[in-house]
Amino acid sequence: MQNSNGPRPSGSSSPVNIVRANADGLTALEDRVATEEPLEISVDYERRGGLRVARSVSVTMRTPGSDRELAAGFLFGEGILDEAGQVSEIAPLPGQANTIRVSLRPGVEVNLKSLERHFYTTSSCGVCGKASIEALRMERGVHQDADAPLVDLRTALDLPGALRQAQRVFDVTGGLHGAALFDPLGNLICVREDVGRHNAVDKVIGAQFLASRMPLSHDILVLSGRASFELVQKAVVAGIPILVAVGAPSSLAVEVARQFGTTLLGFVRDGRINVYSGAQRLREARVSLTPT
Amino acid sequence: MQNSNGPRPSGSSSPVNIVRANADGLTALEDRVATEEPLEISVDYERRGGLRVARSVSVTMRTPGSDRELAAGFLFGEGILDEAGQVSEIAPLPGQANTIRVSLRPGVEVNLKSLERHFYTTSSCGVCGKASIEALRMERGVHQDADAPLVDLRTALDLPGALRQAQRVFDVTGGLHGAALFDPLGNLICVREDVGRHNAVDKVIGAQFLASRMPLSHDILVLSGRASFELVQKAVVAGIPILVAVGAPSSLAVEVARQFGTTLLGFVRDGRINVYSGAQRLREARVSLTPT
Repeated sequence: MQNSNGPRPSGSSSPVNIVRANADGLTALEDRVATEEPLEISVDYERRGGLRVARSVSVTMRTPGSDRELAAGFLFGEGILDEAGQVSEIAPLPGQANTIRVSLRPGVEVNLKSLERHFYTTSSCGVCGKASIEALRMERGVHQDADAPLVDLRTALDLPGALRQAQRVFDVTGGLHGAALFDPLGNLICVREDVGRHNAVDKVIGAQFLASRMPLSHDILVLSGRASFELVQKAVVAGIPILVAVGAPSSLAVEVARQFGTTLLGFVRDGRINVYSGAQRLREARVSLTPT
Repeated sequence: MQNSNGPRPSGSSSPVNIVRANADGLTALEDRVATEEPLEISVDYERRGGLRVARSVSVTMRTPGSDRELAAGFLFGEGILDEAGQVSEIAPLPGQANTIRVSLRPGVEVNLKSLERHFYTTSSCGVCGKASIEALRMERGVHQDADAPLVDLRTALDLPGALRQAQRVFDVTGGLHGAALFDPLGNLICVREDVGRHNAVDKVIGAQFLASRMPLSHDILVLSGRASFELVQKAVVAGIPILVAVGAPSSLAVEVARQFGTTLLGFVRDGRINVYSGAQRLREARVSLTPT
């Protein structure tokens, strides 16, 4: 392949020569962009009979860094891994930084089928949002504590700013999704960044999975952008009770949050919050309003 | 499944009861969110020997509307369809609005394998960005005109605003990705919205595919958000010479744009533009600067 003098990846951001145009004219300068590279996730496990096999389960475009956590979080979210004790090692293949292998302990059974059965169809409506939610309920047996924890509206309002402060790669590239976990008092537990918002969430949850902190039943997940079905699903599977998004949720994100009792706050910016579900976890709301 | 009083989808946006919290206290109100529902894309084709078979090729979470165009654009981008004449009909299954079937004319051969081989590995580095770009080159034989068309910097600066003006569902939900095609004078050709930015691009390109306008060698694609590898890849496959993003590009987006001679403009807002590749298509840049 020819050399294009393109970005030279060096970690989570890459230098790139650009031309900037504005009212003052055109200027050649060196800038930085978020690095995007494919990551292949491979699972190495023991078949019945003792034979070990490795199977590629996903290729995702991601920002390098926290690859072990990304792989663990992805496999947990997909229902392939349940707890850190199932894993013996997570490491890139020798000389191949973009292929990471998750090795499972002898005797751990994996259900790679779960990768393919996210969208059950129902006899009544075929493929639909309700069937997607039902599949989530059936596969993972997710449940959450009714109320705990409580969070102050004031604390919730400050979380997007705290996430933004913690996004170091965003500072140099101006373009990266962020996800972070906070405790109910607003203290930062973990922050990760990625070109893909699902990857940022997988990295954050994967870090907790590897530290055997699951389920995350007292944590708040904060997203730098919008909340889609997929992201709320990841929070639900991890047992996260409160999800805060700087942007808008989708209809199915609201639906899944309500079905599983997750508190979903959106448009958390400029001193206001939209509460889409689970208002009973907001301290002020308990006093002044009947829960949604 | 229990009734949760969740959003009641009715097209591209759905009404939802929320609680709004701000300095004035808490208010219950009805708002609207962008609709998100799964769409299964199925291809119905004739096998050698004359037997017709239908195969599900994708389930994507999308905002309902322009489903025919989404299916066509997706299959074109994946290399399964080349031209509109291959298609006899695109229609939802009877009574199943979330499953769309693309029926191909007798004798049209499809290569569903192309869905699975986006990420070739190379012997030198394994899975990597260069291999991803090389796979794109090998599979689609993409090429572009060296220079045409030209666009004024002033016109380019106005395009994000023009896209935003044309986003009708964003207006009521505050949260939807937009993609639009413009001609080099800044006239709107087509705009589509979706919860998934790849879907918005597939809808826009699919509409042109169905109108037999391919390749789009004089069009400008404008994106409401960031530019990733996947989105630049879709532009390249459609022959689009100029891509304008309101947000940041990734390293691999820049790399693929340079490899295929696509003009990539990012951070187009607040009166400034970052030119990541293909400056020769900017009229002012031809006068004052050597092309990147």
